[in-house]
Amino acid sequence: MRVYNFSPGPSALPLEVLERAAKEMTDTNGTGQSVMEMSHRSKDYKPIFERTEALLRELMGIPSNYKVLFLQGGASLQFSMIPLNLAAGEQGSAKKKAVYIDTGVWAKKASDEAAKYAEVSIPASSKDKAYAYIPAAPKADSDAAYYHITLNNTIVGTKWASIPDTGAVPLISDISSCILSEPLDVSKFGLLYAGAQKNLGPAGTTVVIIREDLIGHAPAWTPALLRYDIHAAEASMYNTPPCYGIYIIGLVLEWLKNLGGVSVIAQKNREKANLFYSYLESSKHFLSPVEKVSRSLMNIPFVPRETDPEKRKDIETRFVKEAGAAGLVNLAGHRLVGGMRASIYNAMPIEGVKALIAFAEKFEGSL
Amino acid sequence: MRVYNFSPGPSALPLEVLERAAKEMTDTNGTGQSVMEMSHRSKDYKPIFERTEALLRELMGIPSNYKVLFLQGGASLQFSMIPLNLAAGEQGSAKKKAVYIDTGVWAKKASDEAAKYAEVSIPASSKDKAYAYIPAAPKADSDAAYYHITLNNTIVGTKWASIPDTGAVPLISDISSCILSEPLDVSKFGLLYAGAQKNLGPAGTTVVIIREDLIGHAPAWTPALLRYDIHAAEASMYNTPPCYGIYIIGLVLEWLKNLGGVSVIAQKNREKANLFYSYLESSKHFLSPVEKVSRSLMNIPFVPRETDPEKRKDIETRFVKEAGAAGLVNLAGHRLVGGMRASIYNAMPIEGVKALIAFAEKFEGSL
Ligand SMILES: Cc1ncc(COP(=O)(O)O)c(C=O)c1O
Ligand SMILES: Cc1ncc(COP(=O)(O)O)c(C=O)c1O
Ligand SMILES: [Mg+2]
Ligand SMILES: [Mg+2]
Ligand SMILES: [Mg+2]
Ligand SMILES: [Mg+2]
Repeated sequence: MRVYNFSPGPSALPLEVLERAAKEMTDTNGTGQSVMEMSHRSKDYKPIFERTEALLRELMGIPSNYKVLFLQGGASLQFSMIPLNLAAGEQGSAKKKAVYIDTGVWAKKASDEAAKYAEVSIPASSKDKAYAYIPAAPKADSDAAYYHITLNNTIVGTKWASIPDTGAVPLISDISSCILSEPLDVSKFGLLYAGAQKNLGPAGTTVVIIREDLIGHAPAWTPALLRYDIHAAEASMYNTPPCYGIYIIGLVLEWLKNLGGVSVIAQKNREKANLFYSYLESSKHFLSPVEKVSRSLMNIPFVPRETDPEKRKDIETRFVKEAGAAGLVNLAGHRLVGGMRASIYNAMPIEGVKALIAFAEKFEGSL
Repeated sequence: MRVYNFSPGPSALPLEVLERAAKEMTDTNGTGQSVMEMSHRSKDYKPIFERTEALLRELMGIPSNYKVLFLQGGASLQFSMIPLNLAAGEQGSAKKKAVYIDTGVWAKKASDEAAKYAEVSIPASSKDKAYAYIPAAPKADSDAAYYHITLNNTIVGTKWASIPDTGAVPLISDISSCILSEPLDVSKFGLLYAGAQKNLGPAGTTVVIIREDLIGHAPAWTPALLRYDIHAAEASMYNTPPCYGIYIIGLVLEWLKNLGGVSVIAQKNREKANLFYSYLESSKHFLSPVEKVSRSLMNIPFVPRETDPEKRKDIETRFVKEAGAAGLVNLAGHRLVGGMRASIYNAMPIEGVKALIAFAEKFEGSL
């Protein structure tokens, strides 16, 4: 029996996609091969790769002066590639400035890594309130190489309600946990990146969407696989790409397109999130720790209203365990934060959210 | 209908493995989830990951003072990681020496990348004869950080008949296209690495087997994801690993263990390769361009005996096309080399080799 999987990533995929992948596993498109067996440079694989890119461009409305790259290494490798390609000077020459806004663990990891290759400044942070809000975005220094934000913060459950205007300074965003969840104006960004394992497909593929003028600025000592110019010139096939993951992403995008695309899924996502936030507002025992205007549609942390630490811990442990036994799995909050968290990505049906609320209401009866 | 897939990688997988993956696609081990949906830190995924590592250790006889890492980026990212971790000095201090033996395209790509971070020397090469043999291995400079060979050369179809003795200098090898094809004494090496997409599973996972004393020497400016110490300390979970690929590798290893392990598959591999080389020896129209003692068990290039360039090209084109139509696919030689190439990895049954020979004999009748 399938469960409702509230994992923050890797996370639930549409059942239709999995069923189709299973059906095509030993013979895809009449080729007599699994996609896992196809040479990445073969005529059998080429249309699969191209369809995935075309669907992503269509669904996100990616302008033609942006390259789409399918890479390896996760969003975490982008934490290095971005400063290496955009802000590291040649050995001897000065590092360029890079602006990071600190909205939580992932933003911090990104800026820590950037500090190896760039002169990092962090003009705003929400650390003072355990990252439970998005700070105002300060104006960018006009000589900054780029300005980095984490659009949706998976762990603490915040998202930027509006996109900061950084003028001529390229805006870069980690959209790992919100890609394709709502319409996004790609043209406002210089570079967008996302690990696949939330709204796109299996872990092991990273999507990078990069404006062409930002390609080609890596110093000579950059590892070949970490250079955007090489990946762009070779259309993501400088070496063997994660072919099967790209195929699954294509199936997910097809599923999304058939649903009606990003505006339709956004409506569903708002409905699901509103349902759960409304439940929390009215709950006697649980609450959302996040400031209203900054709440994520994708990741909803919630904590007991109980303030006694021991009782609180007991409620959390019991909730996660009993929910799991009821087929509502992976509801523990992040190991760095605690509490509970429901990640309700595109593939989570509203029935899953309703089942969670029904469970939580019943659980409250035991408190 | 399934084809016989002679692709050099990504390449054929055992049908049993694909059928099992299909069957488990929407619900694995009674978890109600696909492995693609499992959180990498979940209790559902943990045993899958651990079983894969344990099977690899068992099948390869990996000593306990070696770490096994499951990484992203392909074998090509190892071309950078090896010199970065083992030979790059801190900025300002001297780069260490690294020895590379030039046996073809992949060896050359590895040494080109190393030259960014190490003082590379290439004391032997087989470039003089289009890489159709393995050169004698010169003694290593005792102050070299490591000595690098490409054990099996996928493109030109050579393999090292014996492992060079490099004394106290750690021997490193790219075993992308021969891992698990024959017994290998891991203790002779400091580091072994392989992209998964030949004998292990789908593209997108790279296996690194590293002796513990070689971990921990990366300079501070190394990208986090490119540090062996970080991956070793976090047991390949510093960030989200390619979970599904690791699962498929586990299934392939289970298949191999059930067959009888590496010594049994080696016997089968020798039988398959001998069959095809014998055919070539006796063929009036085709030959192996590779020196006998250096011939690969996994990749067998073959070329027309015809010497007229135009007729030759015509034979090659027709062979690859007609073989494909007969369900024997991906027989074109590498784009840099031409001719034909049959890659017959572990998953290729002897029936595939027999079918290829039968086809080739019939094709010869048309010449
Ligand atoms: C917003 C965000 N950025 C980065 C990461 C790290 O991604 P990866 O594990 O693919 O490196 C995550 C992982 O959950 C994330 O949620
Ligand atoms: C021996 C060898 N090394 C390295 C590579 C490159 O591997 P990847 O594409 O995984 O980077 C290949 C690819 O076929 C190979 O055969
Ligand atoms: Mg994750
Ligand atoms: Mg966060
Ligand atoms: Mg390859
Ligand atoms: Mg080669």
